[in-house]
Amino acid sequence: MELGMVGLGRMGANMAERLVGHGHHVVGFDPGAKAREQATARRVVTAGSLVELVAQLLPQRVLWLMVPAGEVVDATIAELLPLLSEGDVVIDGGNSNYKDTMRRGAMLAGHGIHYLDCGTSGGIWGLKEGYSLMIGGDEAAVERLRPIFSALAPAPDRGWGRVGPSGAGHFTKMIHNGIEYGMMQAYAEGFAIMQRKTALGLDLQQVAHIWQHGSVVRSWLLDRTADALDRNPRLDGIAPHVSDSGEGRWTVAEAIDLDVSAPVITLSLLERLRSREDDSFADKLLAAMRAEFGGHAIKRSE
Amino acid sequence: MELGMVGLGRMGANMAERLVGHGHHVVGFDPGAKAREQATARRVVTAGSLVELVAQLLPQRVLWLMVPAGEVVDATIAELLPLLSEGDVVIDGGNSNYKDTMRRGAMLAGHGIHYLDCGTSGGIWGLKEGYSLMIGGDEAAVERLRPIFSALAPAPDRGWGRVGPSGAGHFTKMIHNGIEYGMMQAYAEGFAIMQRKTALGLDLQQVAHIWQHGSVVRSWLLDRTADALDRNPRLDGIAPHVSDSGEGRWTVAEAIDLDVSAPVITLSLLERLRSREDDSFADKLLAAMRAEFGGHAIKRSE
Amino acid sequence: MELGMVGLGRMGANMAERLVGHGHHVVGFDPGAKAREQATARRVVTAGSLVELVAQLLPQRVLWLMVPAGEVVDATIAELLPLLSEGDVVIDGGNSNYKDTMRRGAMLAGHGIHYLDCGTSGGIWGLKEGYSLMIGGDEAAVERLRPIFSALAPAPDRGWGRVGPSGAGHFTKMIHNGIEYGMMQAYAEGFAIMQRKTALGLDLQQVAHIWQHGSVVRSWLLDRTADALDRNPRLDGIAPHVSDSGEGRWTVAEAIDLDVSAPVITLSLLERLRSREDDSFADKLLAAMRAEFGGHAIKRSE
Amino acid sequence: MELGMVGLGRMGANMAERLVGHGHHVVGFDPGAKAREQATARRVVTAGSLVELVAQLLPQRVLWLMVPAGEVVDATIAELLPLLSEGDVVIDGGNSNYKDTMRRGAMLAGHGIHYLDCGTSGGIWGLKEGYSLMIGGDEAAVERLRPIFSALAPAPDRGWGRVGPSGAGHFTKMIHNGIEYGMMQAYAEGFAIMQRKTALGLDLQQVAHIWQHGSVVRSWLLDRTADALDRNPRLDGIAPHVSDSGEGRWTVAEAIDLDVSAPVITLSLLERLRSREDDSFADKLLAAMRAEFGGHAIKRSE
Repeated sequence: MELGMVGLGRMGANMAERLVGHGHHVVGFDPGAKAREQATARRVVTAGSLVELVAQLLPQRVLWLMVPAGEVVDATIAELLPLLSEGDVVIDGGNSNYKDTMRRGAMLAGHGIHYLDCGTSGGIWGLKEGYSLMIGGDEAAVERLRPIFSALAPAPDRGWGRVGPSGAGHFTKMIHNGIEYGMMQAYAEGFAIMQRKTALGLDLQQVAHIWQHGSVVRSWLLDRTADALDRNPRLDGIAPHVSDSGEGRWTVAEAIDLDVSAPVITLSLLERLRSREDDSFADKLLAAMRAEFGGHAIKRSE
Repeated sequence: MELGMVGLGRMGANMAERLVGHGHHVVGFDPGAKAREQATARRVVTAGSLVELVAQLLPQRVLWLMVPAGEVVDATIAELLPLLSEGDVVIDGGNSNYKDTMRRGAMLAGHGIHYLDCGTSGGIWGLKEGYSLMIGGDEAAVERLRPIFSALAPAPDRGWGRVGPSGAGHFTKMIHNGIEYGMMQAYAEGFAIMQRKTALGLDLQQVAHIWQHGSVVRSWLLDRTADALDRNPRLDGIAPHVSDSGEGRWTVAEAIDLDVSAPVITLSLLERLRSREDDSFADKLLAAMRAEFGGHAIKRSE
Repeated sequence: MELGMVGLGRMGANMAERLVGHGHHVVGFDPGAKAREQATARRVVTAGSLVELVAQLLPQRVLWLMVPAGEVVDATIAELLPLLSEGDVVIDGGNSNYKDTMRRGAMLAGHGIHYLDCGTSGGIWGLKEGYSLMIGGDEAAVERLRPIFSALAPAPDRGWGRVGPSGAGHFTKMIHNGIEYGMMQAYAEGFAIMQRKTALGLDLQQVAHIWQHGSVVRSWLLDRTADALDRNPRLDGIAPHVSDSGEGRWTVAEAIDLDVSAPVITLSLLERLRSREDDSFADKLLAAMRAEFGGHAIKRSE
Repeated sequence: MELGMVGLGRMGANMAERLVGHGHHVVGFDPGAKAREQATARRVVTAGSLVELVAQLLPQRVLWLMVPAGEVVDATIAELLPLLSEGDVVIDGGNSNYKDTMRRGAMLAGHGIHYLDCGTSGGIWGLKEGYSLMIGGDEAAVERLRPIFSALAPAPDRGWGRVGPSGAGHFTKMIHNGIEYGMMQAYAEGFAIMQRKTALGLDLQQVAHIWQHGSVVRSWLLDRTADALDRNPRLDGIAPHVSDSGEGRWTVAEAIDLDVSAPVITLSLLERLRSREDDSFADKLLAAMRAEFGGHAIKRSE
């Protein structure tokens, strides 16, 4: 099939390459000349503008957006809209908020354009291993794109599916990432306890490798943990500073909105916030309170 | 090799069968006649008593304990001790507390008997897929038992290893189970949020299967989650009642003892306790307090 | 001073009575005839409609809204707006979201009307003990209403103050309620542990009373806890079902938005959600997962 | 009455002074010459050794221990035991673990000596405001010491009481401290959110003072928070480093032991542990994992 890839960053370029490798014709666009150049080297045809990109595709066109979630998606859609025709399909493969997706889908439906949301998991490994794809939107449109999804997924009939109406794909991906936060935090805590138990002299790298085979906690994330420990067994030089993108926050907000208590996913997010606190006001106040009521000594900051 | 298996419950019998399948000679003992009978049907030679069991093994004997953690281990060791000779090896393959293990190991060392602790993961699937084995204790003794561990593990050179001195195996298994609690809770929360989002009509079974391929959260526990949902998609008839064995509690206690904050593992345990609260006094008091200060209505219990 | 009270529910009627008791002239309105009647019995002049209410006040009028947060506030303001004149002051004394307050304040400022937000704490006890008032909005307008705030507060110069621009009062009240959740949960957990420690036969009512005098945990909420236990020492007949209004949720969302980790306030909210889960899907899934991988028995629901 | 105070540190000296102020005769001992000297200046008679101390008291003696919890208590009791006579009373007023207390009580009972445990709350403020006393042990012995407890408490008939058998006092105090952790953390989080909301320019000192009067969250700990903010409004120079003594840990362990989920008290403890982590291994591993699977940048430590 023919597909236009909008956004040739790490994810977009990888996905374009995987599609090309499966015999699809991909025309890509990125505002950055370097990104376009690199994509060309990976056998992706590139266009110098969105206008050019759309011009190189025959209706009914398929446009895959792989751009940063948020305003960039809205801006891209606004720029694409006058260029598209009825029956074209736009897919948002990024980590958009599902509520934005529903709003965009309704708007584009008003113009006869199908808007699919495709939660895309697999990270930089997806290029080789295939991506897990959770798709929301019109059933017929999803069916039409079967060859695309089949190529991106690990196997034609596995690792992808339409999970519901517009927004359902991004909702499912949001939950996926919430779970990911919780799993990562569980591993991180477990390894941290072992690391602190110096009396036993545990070799974390070895433990990770043992657990990869036969254990109840084996997982793809454990494989990555083993890789990380192989690369840097004591994690030297790494700052204890954990970023978060939006999906963890959205999962927490959604859970509360639905009156579901999700303490582990929630705490996983809070721990990331905490990791970036250099000088916690709460902790300073606690120390000050202890001094006030109990005369306990305060440690002075440097 | 020749090995005596003490305890032919679900785990012990499976492990005996796997060893037999790999050409080892296993003599098993269990106080229950039925357990012995079933083991016999699985090509395990059985003995009617510990005395008989030991009598059927040639020094230097290998005795594998697969009995409930706690007092039963101490009782079994006490019964075995007069029957054993210097150079024999006793392995505790259960979920004993690592501090008990260290105490037992020191005691048996005084009698010239090697005591190995083998944290064993894999559940009922270990029979076919092999077990992940984290071993603590004397290095030479572990080396001598290489054929046993190689047979129990998923592959001769993978999924097992000596991780440290006496106690290190059970310590590592304890942490493994703490991580397991956290991972399970993360999945459970994520699926619970999706289940509550009725507006999107998500099919949890389908989502689990999509995630099995290519996603960041794919894991052996996710495979089991998919199995559970295949078996009973809406979890009909299952009480929201989650048991816990000791390792989660020990992990929480150990983390605090080491001054490591492990909120996700800790909350995973607390959620299990909470699942078994039918009539929370804390929640009743909260409702009563709200009535006192705000005049808010109290819901009456039936 | 002269003041129009819109909303004569539990809080509005009490505040009107307290103002009347301090010599202010209060005209009240409530859509409910019974609420108006009861207010009349408490020496509050009542009006049969908002139009009548406004008509009975001389510019520059003071209108105090004590209506449910959310759409009712917007609807009330929309109805009031054409009746008001430049220089009038509208105060929202309810638990509105501070972002709504900022929006409303900006809108009314465009009409020359001052909009103050007054976070009001004290519950049903405020009538006698006075209210704690956190006020946001125009400094001169707050100053003009000094007699009103002085009368509502526990003492003329204590327990009230302008804390910042429009929205600051409701923001501060939101945080106040978040803290309240955390404190309540801390007490509830502590008493629940004592209640469960049956071997010591602790008398919770007695403990609460001992703590009221001289202890580090003495507080107004502890006094209410003691009242609750005096009234019903074993909390018989009270369902373990804890409601939450919006401020706890907003506090959690705000903390995350500001990248502040606030685990205790957050968990206090989640525990309330949890208290209302009768049949937790997460817990059912955990039980099902345990059965899948470990063969552990599932408890059947009735 | 006549009482021997063993330990003249901050708490012991204050309590001795309060007793003297109420007309009791207190003989104090402390191994430190300076502590003895300071106590003398506060009208406490001092003894140079435990032997001397006991010699100065008439049977049936009353010995109050105000020494660090743990081994010092055992050592002090061991030293006292041969000096005491049947019918003497020893009170442990410190923060001992209630299980140790039960063990010591049983041991001393075997020698005909009453052992009371007195959980003592009030901090350095107890000298002026009186202490809250939770007492465990023999009822008649408690009754005999009524004048002592009445003098230490805020009022003769308030703020103290026998709550149960040996250990019950320390158990209750342990829970008290767990609640204290939760309350402190709730305030600290709330103030931290306000501090971060720079757009509103909230004055935390002012907010604390407003809340002291009429609010639902008013408390003795809030008074101390206000004091702390009065002293140092921005908490300059205070390290975000929060100590914990044993009672918080014991509360968490006890709750789990009793199968009570106490997430807020538990998280309050974990936050204190977290405040002392300078270079969290868990957070470093999370950052490394993100790099492995998503190619996300790692922040380097300095």
